[in-house]
Amino acid sequence: MADDPFRSSDTLRSARPLAHARQVTFAGPLDLELGGRLPEVTVVFETYGRLSPAKDNAVLVCHALSGDSHVARHDPQDDPGWWDIAVGPGLAIDTEEYYVLCANLLGGCRGTTGPNTLNPATGRRWGADFPTITVNDMVEVQRRLIDHLGIPSLLAAVGGSLGGHQVLTLATRYPERVRGAMVLASSARLTSQALAFDVVGRNAIRRDPQFRDGQYYEDAPGPSVGLALARMLGHITYLSPQAMSEKFGADRLQPRELTTLFENRFSVGSYLAHQSDKFVERFDANSYVTLSMAMDLFDLGSTPAELADALARSRCRWLLISFSSDWLFPPAQAQELADALLALDQPVSFCNVTSDCGHDAFLLPDDLELYGGLMEGFLSALRGAPAANGGEAGHHHHPTSIFRPRRFDYDRILGLIPSGASVLDLGCGRGGLLSSLRQRGESRLLGLELDEQAILSCIQQGLQVVHGDLDQGLPAFADDQFEVVVLSQTLQAVRNVELVLADMLRVGRRAIVSFPNFAYHKLVEMLQQGRAPESPHLLRFKWYNTPNLRFLTIADFEAFCAERGIHIHQRLALDTEEGKEVHADANRLADLAIFVLAAG
Amino acid sequence: MADDPFRSSDTLRSARPLAHARQVTFAGPLDLELGGRLPEVTVVFETYGRLSPAKDNAVLVCHALSGDSHVARHDPQDDPGWWDIAVGPGLAIDTEEYYVLCANLLGGCRGTTGPNTLNPATGRRWGADFPTITVNDMVEVQRRLIDHLGIPSLLAAVGGSLGGHQVLTLATRYPERVRGAMVLASSARLTSQALAFDVVGRNAIRRDPQFRDGQYYEDAPGPSVGLALARMLGHITYLSPQAMSEKFGADRLQPRELTTLFENRFSVGSYLAHQSDKFVERFDANSYVTLSMAMDLFDLGSTPAELADALARSRCRWLLISFSSDWLFPPAQAQELADALLALDQPVSFCNVTSDCGHDAFLLPDDLELYGGLMEGFLSALRGAPAANGGEAGHHHHPTSIFRPRRFDYDRILGLIPSGASVLDLGCGRGGLLSSLRQRGESRLLGLELDEQAILSCIQQGLQVVHGDLDQGLPAFADDQFEVVVLSQTLQAVRNVELVLADMLRVGRRAIVSFPNFAYHKLVEMLQQGRAPESPHLLRFKWYNTPNLRFLTIADFEAFCAERGIHIHQRLALDTEEGKEVHADANRLADLAIFVLAAG
Repeated sequence: MADDPFRSSDTLRSARPLAHARQVTFAGPLDLELGGRLPEVTVVFETYGRLSPAKDNAVLVCHALSGDSHVARHDPQDDPGWWDIAVGPGLAIDTEEYYVLCANLLGGCRGTTGPNTLNPATGRRWGADFPTITVNDMVEVQRRLIDHLGIPSLLAAVGGSLGGHQVLTLATRYPERVRGAMVLASSARLTSQALAFDVVGRNAIRRDPQFRDGQYYEDAPGPSVGLALARMLGHITYLSPQAMSEKFGADRLQPRELTTLFENRFSVGSYLAHQSDKFVERFDANSYVTLSMAMDLFDLGSTPAELADALARSRCRWLLISFSSDWLFPPAQAQELADALLALDQPVSFCNVTSDCGHDAFLLPDDLELYGGLMEGFLSALRGAPAANGGEAGHHHHPTSIFRPRRFDYDRILGLIPSGASVLDLGCGRGGLLSSLRQRGESRLLGLELDEQAILSCIQQGLQVVHGDLDQGLPAFADDQFEVVVLSQTLQAVRNVELVLADMLRVGRRAIVSFPNFAYHKLVEMLQQGRAPESPHLLRFKWYNTPNLRFLTIADFEAFCAERGIHIHQRLALDTEEGKEVHADANRLADLAIFVLAAG
Repeated sequence: MADDPFRSSDTLRSARPLAHARQVTFAGPLDLELGGRLPEVTVVFETYGRLSPAKDNAVLVCHALSGDSHVARHDPQDDPGWWDIAVGPGLAIDTEEYYVLCANLLGGCRGTTGPNTLNPATGRRWGADFPTITVNDMVEVQRRLIDHLGIPSLLAAVGGSLGGHQVLTLATRYPERVRGAMVLASSARLTSQALAFDVVGRNAIRRDPQFRDGQYYEDAPGPSVGLALARMLGHITYLSPQAMSEKFGADRLQPRELTTLFENRFSVGSYLAHQSDKFVERFDANSYVTLSMAMDLFDLGSTPAELADALARSRCRWLLISFSSDWLFPPAQAQELADALLALDQPVSFCNVTSDCGHDAFLLPDDLELYGGLMEGFLSALRGAPAANGGEAGHHHHPTSIFRPRRFDYDRILGLIPSGASVLDLGCGRGGLLSSLRQRGESRLLGLELDEQAILSCIQQGLQVVHGDLDQGLPAFADDQFEVVVLSQTLQAVRNVELVLADMLRVGRRAIVSFPNFAYHKLVEMLQQGRAPESPHLLRFKWYNTPNLRFLTIADFEAFCAERGIHIHQRLALDTEEGKEVHADANRLADLAIFVLAAG
């Protein structure tokens, strides 16, 4: 985290007017999802870069609860934007390549129709008369804006938190308008815990005597205490406990000198007082109530079936990114979305980025290299231009790989995969096998991988990959979803062997498994001579540090299959030192075996 | 969790007067830690059971932020107590054995001197004039009460959360007054996150216009909104996210019918409104501010050295209990205390109870079997009466053990441990080896174990044991802290072999390690015949499900030691099938080896 404990995404913000903003008013009424009608809607928005002649390079950025249309500086003299680190020339969302568009939210307080704008029916500000809106309503307004700008289909929509809810909604309600959806630090719905924090925040605002049922605009000061309390609470939930301890643990009793009416005894209290005093200067309490309620009401599908129904409508490619220390939108929620999309056989990539930055991670530079790289690679693939720094397919080896020469293994496995087959590669590493299959012309390819850098490499090559731990099995996948499921030289590092093999045979019509043969004569000879087998070629590690946890022979594996009624469709026994196939006495003479299996 | 989503420890409470409470007023002034003086202090308290003639069976229960002296029913007609599940005849804290004592806290609002009691100097309630107090001040009052009752030394003090802070303070400031300290769901200080939530809660109270600088007693209604907001916030932090999802996830939009001025749109909001509306009827806002500030100011030592200095003053036995889903007082904080005590060679047992109940776990029945059992066993050992249902020493085998007959192994290891030695047993299981050592007369014995039921069994036998994962090494322990560190038949299930062995040799003057020999001729023969070795005697598992992750031979281990300059003090090679020692050709003829090692 930063040297300045008072740093946050918020300290970059100013409450000045949005100098580069444009605005458009849609004269027609907007009928709202929960009833009620807005007679007209004004949208304030900003754009960056140029729309291509084909109008196919637009990227919509959806902001979160307290954001606005000013996603980035328009020029060096401009006020800082909230995502300057990610949006700009040469950055992850490259404004020299893409036409970037960001609108202030419906219900917000920076110009787009909301509680603090004039109600044309009364000539006064809406205030508490502003109706309850939903994320669907927000997205309907964004669709009108896209229409207004003449964009038939967005290259991509991107957003974190409430912004992610908008992307999910856009991609599922208007599937023809989005080719790529990037969802960061978001979910199909809030957790009960996150919702509870919002309830307390709204209670603080609404029970502030200055709230006056939301009609406080004409009589200062408004519910500034309630809004500040809500913001303090929100702020805690945006940070990880680790980050808070680092920022405030050592000097807990050394608050900053502040002029505030809030408690200023502890350094963390000083930070909260400072942040919230600034926030109430730029944000409207009615908008806070309106937008947080929309977020709390958001539910893409409260049962797995409903969620699947909603996501089944999408026609885009998906990139889901969560952050390991985000407890407001826990990674399991992004995993839930990824699993639902996988079960639907929709094109999804997913990465849970290891981070100490909590929910705010998607706004901070700390983990930008990874999450920015994922967005950049995903966008490049969407416009059909894999990034130049892709992963040199096939030359990198698997990060969890125990063995150096995988080409020989890959080549044999490639030969066993029928043309046109869909393939799931478990422990796909940097995508060596998948790249080779794509070069051969295969298109329905997916990798599962644990290592984040390997995932980044796959995404940079335009490959589809999901973050996951093989030892959990493959619960997300449907029966017979793939023609072939591959587990190349990884079986011996798996703890939950029975589950993994059973799931491979359930999810794939065929399973291809390769592993080192522990009965290989040179290994047996070593043991006969009294030492645990090792080999410079196949086993580069020692007994005390090898990632290999399982030691099996070809005969063991055949017995295992026989006991479970697993059909061995084909078996290749290899001597990888000699680079040749072994036909006789394989259990003794082969150092590697490749099995093609099918459920019995 | 419960069927009734509105269940919580709080729903059991009533605001009625404490019928069985007694009170005592200490006429002398109390000089407070942070300055200020209370001219006199009144304490309201309750007792259960009988003080023994030797006055050696007193157990002090310290309540948490919103508790009181009414820890349990005095008779079936009595109001429910907040710890009825744990305190009573035949329960974990058995009122037929122990004289249980619980006082309302200094600064609270149930009779003991606090902001809502009369200031003798003015004849009016203290209100905002009540000085800032600390946990030290609270404990000073409790010490006076113990004096008043003529109790020279408590058998034990017990408390959770803020109650745990009091136990830590009592045991370190008045070491001669406490023989056993049981600390549940507590810490040496609050996390920055937990402190931040308290700050928001106090801000809500103090910025409530009805707070009137704390002088609200004469003019109803007082800061009930602010206090309710603080309580809502607190309540969220007492529950785990899992528990909240289970309680409120499915029917999130079905609130209970309530008469409340708070938001009642979501079921979780309904719960928070209900709980906090009830809370403000029984609790005083000034007490909330006073007690939460004392908790936030509590810091037993902000650096490891300061913490060690504080804990070094204690002379009691310790039992530390944390709960896995407690994010307000995360288990790492109890681990920090345990580590500090271990480094000081103080007698401490520690268990992190797997629980879904969050911080509230210590008040709820869900995990009572384990945490209650730990308390019961600990108390029994304190009074010198190990519980009858102890762990049948030596007959249980280690839960992570791979091998059946450990007696033979134990007996040999016992023979290798010098009389009078201090022993740390890594992966001690149910304490078989430690029990045997105790029977032999050894007293400085400690086990490290991962399995909670095994830990319970050890505690029930009066053995000292700490919860821990061997693969993390032994960072808490000092160099040469034990004469012998034992790792019996566990090396082969360790991932981090080098770290574990290095730490054993650092922490122990001698290390004793036993492991199965993979070059044993019968195993080699199996591999020669093409199958991964297994044996009904030593290796009960198959290649795909064995907990064994490391395969080594006696020669491998000797080479490992030679490379690192580890001195092999003694080596026993055993044929456990024959039950005899092997002297020649051990690497081929022994199935088990025991090494006694020392750093080179």
